[in-house]
Order: sequence, then C-alpha cells, then structure tokens
Amino acid sequence: MRIVVVGGVAGGMSCAARARRLDESAEIIVMERGEHVSFANCGLPYHVGGEIVEAESLLVQTPASLKAALNLDVRTGHDVIGVDTGKRSVTVRTADGSQQVSYDALVLSPGAKAVRPPIDGLDSPRVSTLRTVDDAVALKSSVDDGATRAVVLGAGFIGLEAAEALALRGLEVTVVELAPHVLPPLESEMAQLITDELRRLGITVRDGVAATAIEHGDSEDVVVLGDGTRIPADRIVLSVGVRPDTEAFEAAGIACERGAIVVDGHGRTSVPGVWAVGDAVVSTDAVTGIRRPVPLAGPANRAGRQVADDIIRRGSARPIPAPVGTAIVRVGDLTAALTGANRAALDAAGISYRTLHLHPNQHAGYFPGASQVHLVMHIRAHDGLILGAQAVGLDGVDKRIDVLATAIRAGLVAPDLIDLDLAYAPPFGSAKDAVNMAGMVASNVLDGTLKIWDATELESATRGALLLDVRSHAEFATGRLPGAFNVPHTELRERLDEVRGAAAGRPVRVLCQSGVRSAIAHRVLTQSGFDSASLSGGMLTMRAVLGDRAADNLITD
Amino acid sequence: MRIVVVGGVAGGMSCAARARRLDESAEIIVMERGEHVSFANCGLPYHVGGEIVEAESLLVQTPASLKAALNLDVRTGHDVIGVDTGKRSVTVRTADGSQQVSYDALVLSPGAKAVRPPIDGLDSPRVSTLRTVDDAVALKSSVDDGATRAVVLGAGFIGLEAAEALALRGLEVTVVELAPHVLPPLESEMAQLITDELRRLGITVRDGVAATAIEHGDSEDVVVLGDGTRIPADRIVLSVGVRPDTEAFEAAGIACERGAIVVDGHGRTSVPGVWAVGDAVVSTDAVTGIRRPVPLAGPANRAGRQVADDIIRRGSARPIPAPVGTAIVRVGDLTAALTGANRAALDAAGISYRTLHLHPNQHAGYFPGASQVHLVMHIRAHDGLILGAQAVGLDGVDKRIDVLATAIRAGLVAPDLIDLDLAYAPPFGSAKDAVNMAGMVASNVLDGTLKIWDATELESATRGALLLDVRSHAEFATGRLPGAFNVPHTELRERLDEVRGAAAGRPVRVLCQSGVRSAIAHRVLTQSGFDSASLSGGMLTMRAVLGDRAADNLITD
Repeated sequence: MRIVVVGGVAGGMSCAARARRLDESAEIIVMERGEHVSFANCGLPYHVGGEIVEAESLLVQTPASLKAALNLDVRTGHDVIGVDTGKRSVTVRTADGSQQVSYDALVLSPGAKAVRPPIDGLDSPRVSTLRTVDDAVALKSSVDDGATRAVVLGAGFIGLEAAEALALRGLEVTVVELAPHVLPPLESEMAQLITDELRRLGITVRDGVAATAIEHGDSEDVVVLGDGTRIPADRIVLSVGVRPDTEAFEAAGIACERGAIVVDGHGRTSVPGVWAVGDAVVSTDAVTGIRRPVPLAGPANRAGRQVADDIIRRGSARPIPAPVGTAIVRVGDLTAALTGANRAALDAAGISYRTLHLHPNQHAGYFPGASQVHLVMHIRAHDGLILGAQAVGLDGVDKRIDVLATAIRAGLVAPDLIDLDLAYAPPFGSAKDAVNMAGMVASNVLDGTLKIWDATELESATRGALLLDVRSHAEFATGRLPGAFNVPHTELRERLDEVRGAAAGRPVRVLCQSGVRSAIAHRVLTQSGFDSASLSGGMLTMRAVLGDRAADNLITD
Repeated sequence: MRIVVVGGVAGGMSCAARARRLDESAEIIVMERGEHVSFANCGLPYHVGGEIVEAESLLVQTPASLKAALNLDVRTGHDVIGVDTGKRSVTVRTADGSQQVSYDALVLSPGAKAVRPPIDGLDSPRVSTLRTVDDAVALKSSVDDGATRAVVLGAGFIGLEAAEALALRGLEVTVVELAPHVLPPLESEMAQLITDELRRLGITVRDGVAATAIEHGDSEDVVVLGDGTRIPADRIVLSVGVRPDTEAFEAAGIACERGAIVVDGHGRTSVPGVWAVGDAVVSTDAVTGIRRPVPLAGPANRAGRQVADDIIRRGSARPIPAPVGTAIVRVGDLTAALTGANRAALDAAGISYRTLHLHPNQHAGYFPGASQVHLVMHIRAHDGLILGAQAVGLDGVDKRIDVLATAIRAGLVAPDLIDLDLAYAPPFGSAKDAVNMAGMVASNVLDGTLKIWDATELESATRGALLLDVRSHAEFATGRLPGAFNVPHTELRERLDEVRGAAAGRPVRVLCQSGVRSAIAHRVLTQSGFDSASLSGGMLTMRAVLGDRAADNLITD
C-alpha cells in the first residue's frame, strides 16, 4: 500500500509517523511544498525575539531523521497542485517540473495561508508574514540589521507574540486590530488586561480600526489607518488570520465548505481513499456545534494520528473528537488562555448561558508570590454545563484552563468542579482551588443562593438601584462608582436600616473588590427582604469592562 | 437554631461560614480547643524555613474578623470533652472550668493528632510536632537560637517540608523513615527521585529503618536507630502520621471505625443531629473503595460546606464525593504529586491494573527551560479506566496531576486523554501534551499495539531474553545493562538479521532512554516476527527502580 501525505507539518507528519508505527510494509511518501518539515511554527516569534537563539532548533525533524527513524520518504520542495481522484494520483510540481504520483490512500494536510486583506500597497517588500522558518529568519535579520519601527497588522495570538518579540528587540511597535480589542476570541474584559500589559511593554495598541493603505517610501513605509493616523514603519508584519489552502483539492472535486475540506468523524473526505486533517478542514465545535476550521496544532496532530488508524485499521479506529478550541498566549508577564466557547460563539449558536467572574489567587495567599487568576466562566443556564472559560494572570493560568478544558471534554456541570480533588500545598494552590471556587459560585448562582449582576449592566443599575459598595472605607476612597453608597461588609448587619433608607424602595446592587464580600453581603440583604444582587467579579471586573473609560467613570479622593 | 461546630480549622470553619451564608438567623458557635482558628497549617513548615516571614500571616482569620464578617461566635481555648447526644448538649472545658452548651445541630471537626510511636525517650523536650502555629514559632525560635542538628522522624509530606525548611536554615538534617522509601504513598521509582533531591539539599536520608530510642543529653539528644546508628540532634521533629482525635465522641456513642467517625454521604454520623467532617472521619476511597481517614485540607473544606447545606437545606444538599486523594509537595527544585490509587492500594483492593511510565517534557523541547515530567499512570487492565497517577519534575507537575485528578473524578478511560484539548504554546506545553502522550501510550498498550515490560522484571528479562538497547552508541556508553546488545533504532531495520542471531530464539526486550524509541523499535520487531516488548519508561525508569544499586548494576565505558 502506498500512502501519500500532502503537507509535512503537524497533522500530516503525525499521520505519516503513526502509519509507519502501525504498518512496516506501507510505502509512505510525504510531499511538502516548503523547504522544511515538522518545523516548530509555534516557536517562530520566539526566534525573532531572541529567546530561541538558533533557528536550527526550530527544525524538530529533517527528511533524513525521519527516513532513519521511521522509514518515511519525505520530499520537500514538492508542491501537490492537482489530484485525479479517479486514477488515484496526484500531480506534483518541483523545481524540475511536474510528475504524477499514484496513491492507495491520500491524506491532505495542506494547512492554511495568510489572509491578505484589501490594503493598498500591501505588496511592499517591508511587509512579511510569520509562518515559516524562512519568514522568522528574515524578520530577525531585518531587526539585526537595524530595523527600528514595526507595525503588526492583526492582534491575534501570533500577532501579539510577534509584537512582543519585536518590542523585546527594542523596536517601537504598533499593533493594529480591526476588531474592537486585541485577542478577539477573548472577552473584552479579559482583553483589557492584555492591552494594559502590551502598553506596559511599550507597545502602542490601535484597536477597532482598519489599516487602509501602506505608502511605500525609500527609508520606510507609512501605514495609514482608517481614522487617518499615519504610522511610519520599516517592518510590517501581516498577521490578520489564515484561510484553508485548498484550491487544488476543491478543484479536484473534494467537497469543501467555504473553502475548508469537509470530513466525517474519521477524517474521510467526500472522495473514497482521500482523508484530510488540520487547518484546512472544517470542524464542528464541541460546545456550540458551529462549523469552522480550527487552526490549532493539538487537534491537527491528533487528527493525523487517528486518520492513520483509520487507513491502516479501517473500521476499528476511534473517531476524531470535535475540538474544544483551547488556546494560550504569553504576553509580557501575563498569560491569557481560553477553552470552549466565548460569548460571541454562544450568542451565535443561540445557547442560553450565565457568565461568572472570579479573581482567586493562584496559590495560598499567605505564601510569597500569590497573584490573582482573573477567570471568566460561561455555563449553560438551565443545567450548569460548562461551556467555556478564559483566564488571565501572572501564574497558574494554564493549569486552570487545562482543568476546565478537561471538564468540558468530560461533559461536567459546574457544580462538579466543587468535587475536584486538586493538588494543594501552599506553593501550588489553595485548599479551595480557583476551579473549586468557580464551581461553588456557579452552584450558588444556579440554585439561587447567589443572585449576580454584570458590570455591563452598570447604566441601568446606576439609574434604577442603590449601588452599595461594601469594601472598606480606604478601598472606597481609591476609586468608586458615582452614586455608590459605602457600608463595609463588616458593618452591614448593624446598618441595615441605613441601607433601607438609602435604597428608598429601589433594588440594591452590591459590589466589592472581587465579588467575595459582596456575595456575603447579598446573603445578608436578601434574607432581610431586600431585592439584592452581587456584582460578578466586583470592581476588578468593572474596571476591566470600563477599560480606558475607567479614569472618567470612577471617583477617587 | 443553634449549630455548634467542634474545631475551628478547615472543615469546621468552612461549615460555620457556609451555614451563616445560608442562614442569617442561626446561632453558630465554633468551639476551638487551641488558641487559633482558621490558621494555615499547611504553611507552618514555610514559616520555619523563613519563606513565610511573619507568623501572623498564618492566621488567616481571627474570632474578631469572623464575628464581623460572618457573625460567628468563635470560642478559642474551648475543648469539647463530652457529648450528651440524648440531651443534645456538649461539655466544654475552658481555663475557667466546665460548661454545658446545648445544640440543635452538632458538627464534629476535631481533626487528628500526631501518632506517637513506641520510641524510648520520646518525651524529650527536644522533640516537637509541627501541627500548630505555636509549634512552628517554637521550632523557628530554636533555630534562630542556634540549633544546628535536626532529626525528622517520618518522611511523609510534612516531614519532608520540615526537613527542607531546617536544611534551608543551615541545620544538618537527617530524615528517618520506617517505610522502605521517603514519601511512602509514592511509588518507589518516583520516591527515588525525591531521595536524590533531598541528598542534593544536603539532607541525610535513612529509610527502611526505625528510630528505637531517644537518649536525652545535656547539650543534645541522640536518636538511636534500629540498626544501631546514633544521630546527635538538638531538635527532633516528630512527623510519623496522624490519627483521628475522636475519643470523646466515640465515648458518647457516635459510631467509629478504627477510631475514625463513620458518616454517610452527607456527613451524618450514627447519631441524629450530629455530623462530622475532616481528618477525623472515615472516607471511602473513590478508586479502590478502601475505607480510611483522608487527612487532606481540600476534602475537609468541601465536606464542611456540604454538611452546612445538609443542616440548613436538609434533603436537597449534594452528596459529599468520595475523595480521590490528590496531594503534592515541593522538595528542593522538584515537585512530587499524586492522585488516585497507587500500586499498594490497588493490590490491597484486588484491582487488576497496568502501569505506564513516561518522561515527556513539560513544554516544547525547543523552548528554553524544557524539563521532563516523570509520570506514572495506573489504568484498569480490562478497560483502561484511569486509577491513579504520580508525577515528579522541575515544572508542570501540578498541572498534569490536576488534569489527571479531573479525569479520574470524571471517570475517563485512558484513551480519552488523547482527546483532551490542552493549552499549547511553546512556554506552556506541547502540541501533544504529556497527558495526551500518556493517553496514547495507554491506548497502544490496551489494544496490543504496544507490548511493554517493566523495570522490575529485569532479572527475568536478563535471564530469558535478549536485552536490546536501541539508544545511540554514545548513550549506550554512558550506562548500560549487563548483557545488553546495542543497535540504535535508526539502524534497526537494516540489522534485523543481526538481532535475530543475537536473540537466538529468545524473546527480545527492547529499551531506550525514555521508552519512545523502544516503542518504535518494538513495532518494527513485532511486525518482523519477534516476540518483543518495550521497557516502560526506559533507562530513566530503570535507573530509578535500581536506585542506589544503579551504580553497581550498570556498565559505563
């Protein structure tokens, strides 16, 4: 049997390696258009930034090493430009011309290519993407050679990694993002924390605005934004997203959906004998059921492995699971991570949900180095099924998101999180871990023990309710909402009549710093006959929601 | 309603706080024998070591803060010495005498007390435990005052934390453990890594031997071991375990099992109106069904909360889950953590299982700072249910154990671990995370793709099989098993006839450094007709199993 794999990175190479482990007798040919296979594309920005010193360390495998270890026939510089699905052969273009190569099984892992937005002058030689080792080496060289000002178009994961890398190297960096905030998959209140960190790194953030033109100049270009801003730059990194690189396969009659290859639960395309994996295929989101390509390395590698199982052991292979969509990025000293669905996806899917905000410490507060994990969790309104979570913080973010990703995959409901026995010693966690706390808050919200209000409801709360701030007087003085009435939670029971007078029949909307004390206050109030609710995530979340408007909307003494 | 809680730490205080949040009208009295409530007992060793500078920071709450925030009536120095379950009252002893306090609901959270082994001279004033803030302050003072030599009796979690703290302070420290290795709940091959780290910290480890006597001296005591060793010490820390502190309650007719209070799934004891939580109760292990006390803070806090629900909302409270038994400890630069059952518990429960060893990196190998997570996982033989896992490493250990603890709680089987979408960017993980890798190896073992042999089978493998070492020649030279035949995995396909000759009809037992290359070699061999198996965890695990015998059992050039 001859297996031909198109694309020698992530999914394609995982498939080839697994196929060999399952079948010594198969002929396995990997066709890679580029110069390198199995390279560390997620490591490219760190080479530009200098953390990964040698470009060679990004080349995890070579055709020679793959031949020696796994007897794979890896052909770089081989571009598959056509498929004859009837004859079961592919047309391969190389520097020497074209050839036909027949297959018994064909695995398509062509990946994605950079989206090129309609910007005048995008053909400037100062514009580059960051998708290959050569891209990284070239960008790094331009910095080594004295580049001083960079614009990064697109503030997604790779865009921010590139921006930070260039800032680390001393360049003046501006990030331009068409969406309302950086890292568009993050909720805005989480993205605000990342925007603040980017600014701390000296990076200029321009969000909610398009780049409309790049004016070519002799010593530098000028990036022109939709609002007229002109940003000089000697390097411009294009990172506004990717789309499946599938023209040749769609032309061959393999069914696609908005350019992405359609596959079944075993990675089989519409054509017998042809499988597809990775960034080029359409997946069905595990939480929302939304169909879209999921350009992530983990799911690609897994699908490659499962497709090899299906080819060699047809009928007995495990299905490829729907992706949960977990992702993470380091930005300065912060980490941002997310798993499952965000508000936009849940809204698009018409799923009714509740959103919780927490700011627990990553480990025991009395142990040196304690810092907060800013956590958002979405749960299904009627049963608490965990739909998605996001976290931002200095430490412990990856752990909480991985636990929650596991919970989502296992179909846990939020109260199940209370029951998780997570590892606790003072350097690592708390007796009630951040994830346990999320389960407790969710459980309270689901059964009505806790009624919450959201920072986005501030306007109506200010208009129609008493804002009751139960922080200490000292905290209150450092920044309060206009009209807020201050009764520290430790004085609340004695001052209920005073609160009743101030409320004058209106509901009470309680708030504190993080939502813990206001939840206690809510319980006191609701049992005393008040219509009360506690601000989800407290002033920490309120400040993040207000973002740049916080300075104008908070009163300080 | 009056709720009386006996014990103001962890479970008891969680119960009292939750009860208040649920019911403003209840009278809630917490009786604490000691001087402090809600103190950070897990933080005590770090105060001795100087990482937690102020003892005050260990006092998370005070009676006054609990009164102000939660209207709790917290009484320290109040020792509950008897219960009249018929009259629903407790007898409380204070400095001023005894009193009766009636209750509607009684919650017992008395905790555990240090086991005092039969050692002559254990009453020396130089012997102390490390269970209270006062213990920590006193031990720290003795160090501040010039103590120079310490013996720690017991190498469990707290014993090792104490030993490291004292070593950090410059003392000469010996740890004495009766069990065959330090951290007895760890598998021996994992414990060996911790023993090595303790030695690196300058701590002398004496395991598999009892302390038999403490000879009192003027300037120092001498700890005498069963083998005659005499160890001078001016401080002796007793940390050989705990047992439930329940005499008063058993005497009152509350059903106990080997000294631990028996409770149902809602924390209810045998007596109406009496609940119990924490270190003093017997739990049914979630994995093995073995009944024993589980002295861990997380389960205690959770049970306290659930008992409050049961008291206030009887009938609608969620049950208290069986503990999974997750624990973690930092030892020097290493972290050791475990979740679920170990070999001893599985053997005791008669559960048939398979054990896997892996040594994956904690994050992308090409990113600076990559280090190995040494991982052991036990899975049920017939279906791959995850039964337990342990990990030791420099970084990323807590995350993997928490993910696996979540998987165990959710009832996942090992192949489900392949499907987890874990957060990947080069600083945080790999496209195939350590946990995914564990799932892949387990899946291969379960379906027969991979046949493994265990390092403990070395003797029979040496006797009846060809040991085939597929590492490189250079690796082979640094330490090999006697009789091992070296064919690098990259040369294996070309040298199969040579292997066939060397095997001479015997099975082939393959090995490499970590088990990855030998698994590939196994696939080559088994498809070529050999009876082959791959060493689980490779030479890294073999060296840990050999432990101190490695030097005598390995040949180096």
